Amino acid sequence: MNELALIQRIRALAGAPGARVIEGIGDDCAIYRPRPERDLLFTTDLLIEDTHFRARTHPPDAVGWRALARGLSDVAAMGGEPEFCLLSLALARWTGDRWLERFFRGFLKLARKTRTTLAGGDLTRAARVTCDIVVCGSVPKGKALRRDGARPGDAIYVSGRLGAAALGLKTRRGAAWKKHAYPEPRLAHGLKLRGRATGAIDLSDGLALDLHRLCIASGVSAELDAVPVFHGATIEQALHGGEDYELLYTARKPVPGIRIGVIRRGTPGEVTLAGRVVEPRGWDPFR
Amino acid sequence: MNELALIQRIRALAGAPGARVIEGIGDDCAIYRPRPERDLLFTTDLLIEDTHFRARTHPPDAVGWRALARGLSDVAAMGGEPEFCLLSLALARWTGDRWLERFFRGFLKLARKTRTTLAGGDLTRAARVTCDIVVCGSVPKGKALRRDGARPGDAIYVSGRLGAAALGLKTRRGAAWKKHAYPEPRLAHGLKLRGRATGAIDLSDGLALDLHRLCIASGVSAELDAVPVFHGATIEQALHGGEDYELLYTARKPVPGIRIGVIRRGTPGEVTLAGRVVEPRGWDPFR
Repeated sequence: MNELALIQRIRALAGAPGARVIEGIGDDCAIYRPRPERDLLFTTDLLIEDTHFRARTHPPDAVGWRALARGLSDVAAMGGEPEFCLLSLALARWTGDRWLERFFRGFLKLARKTRTTLAGGDLTRAARVTCDIVVCGSVPKGKALRRDGARPGDAIYVSGRLGAAALGLKTRRGAAWKKHAYPEPRLAHGLKLRGRATGAIDLSDGLALDLHRLCIASGVSAELDAVPVFHGATIEQALHGGEDYELLYTARKPVPGIRIGVIRRGTPGEVTLAGRVVEPRGWDPFR
Repeated sequence: MNELALIQRIRALAGAPGARVIEGIGDDCAIYRPRPERDLLFTTDLLIEDTHFRARTHPPDAVGWRALARGLSDVAAMGGEPEFCLLSLALARWTGDRWLERFFRGFLKLARKTRTTLAGGDLTRAARVTCDIVVCGSVPKGKALRRDGARPGDAIYVSGRLGAAALGLKTRRGAAWKKHAYPEPRLAHGLKLRGRATGAIDLSDGLALDLHRLCIASGVSAELDAVPVFHGATIEQALHGGEDYELLYTARKPVPGIRIGVIRRGTPGEVTLAGRVVEPRGWDPFR
């Protein structure tokens, strides 16, 4: 297929845009009419062959699903509702029409589930498959959850057990593989935290590194009592594996989730587990 | 530099965000507060090493400048004013701190010139340098220029002479090289067309292909009398070279620009020049 035919095909698969997307795929820009009295959230995430996924390991629908899930997880961490997304996609020589069709099946399955309109994008060629996803979400004015609001005395929570994604990538089967390949962004959970959590971040790079980031942004340290480990995963996978896409957050009063520790004054960014310092090490392409 | 240090450095280079960017680089999402009574425009463009640029040919500041210029040109074509941008960047093994510094110098020079806040992005590693740029622009509600509004009898215009970018890539010197390496998005020109042009598109892939696209979207054909060729360029470069980032538009009444032809009922998408059919061929990575 040439570019024009590809775009027609994607347009057909994507279906009608949501009410606020005045113009979807097909012009120089997508046109979006914002809802009044809302702030907009924007996140962008690259997913690149051989950096973030491998053609032999990840089925095309999982690549599509994960590309979108990464962005939706950022919106969830800010307490947002998804509005629309844009997808930039570079195809490689080895990706045929069938791969592309399955990629979009995975991508659009999650898009429909979360009511995220695919409003536009870019399509090109490269040596390796490259996706960049942009997700726009919204919150009532001033209500976005941020990572710089954690204060000494706040309890620390996570939205689920950790280490499944790293375990799944290793074993490639069962519930852990499903959590790795088709992570569920915690959008409903994020909504419940609005006006209640003091700080929040999504767990893309692992508890150790992401909690370190939240603590640096808030100028505080963290004391963990325990880490809820996914059945079969190791504590190493739970702390440093990354890609679990659960939410990590802090709150003054009890909130839904698993309580794992408390925020302290201490050295900004320092995280301890049962009294021992945890290294801020996780999923990092710059290692 | 590790990821955290890189982000700090980029944040310092980018400077303070514009007034409507509530939260810039540093959280899970950027937060933007829309202006009332405006529609928002969104465009995303990939710029990939060995597809869109070559490390040996293009200096790093030109790579940064062009990455942003592509997005701004799309906003110009819709009659928009830039609001903010997001940059996803994958660095390769060969890109050191100096390359990155110069890349951002070019990128941010154009950003400052056009008052486009760098509000966030993503940073990772890949085998080849990969940038994805998202630009958000705005227009008064319902005032965006679109490519589907050209009607039979409308005159066809371009904002400048064509073929410079293709000539510059070949000769690598003089004014033509400057137009290739540091294209100026036609934002001021686009503003003048609001409420006056019936259809508009930016010339990223060449007059032949982009006019074909505008005609397909509008269900019309086009008759060109003449093509304004950049000094030293060939008619082939002007018609099919692409990357000039001038605007192509149609209007019922006279508007600023160079008049090049007229819209006809005819076969949708067909373009003729002095009576002969022009092939819809241009810059296309899928060729």
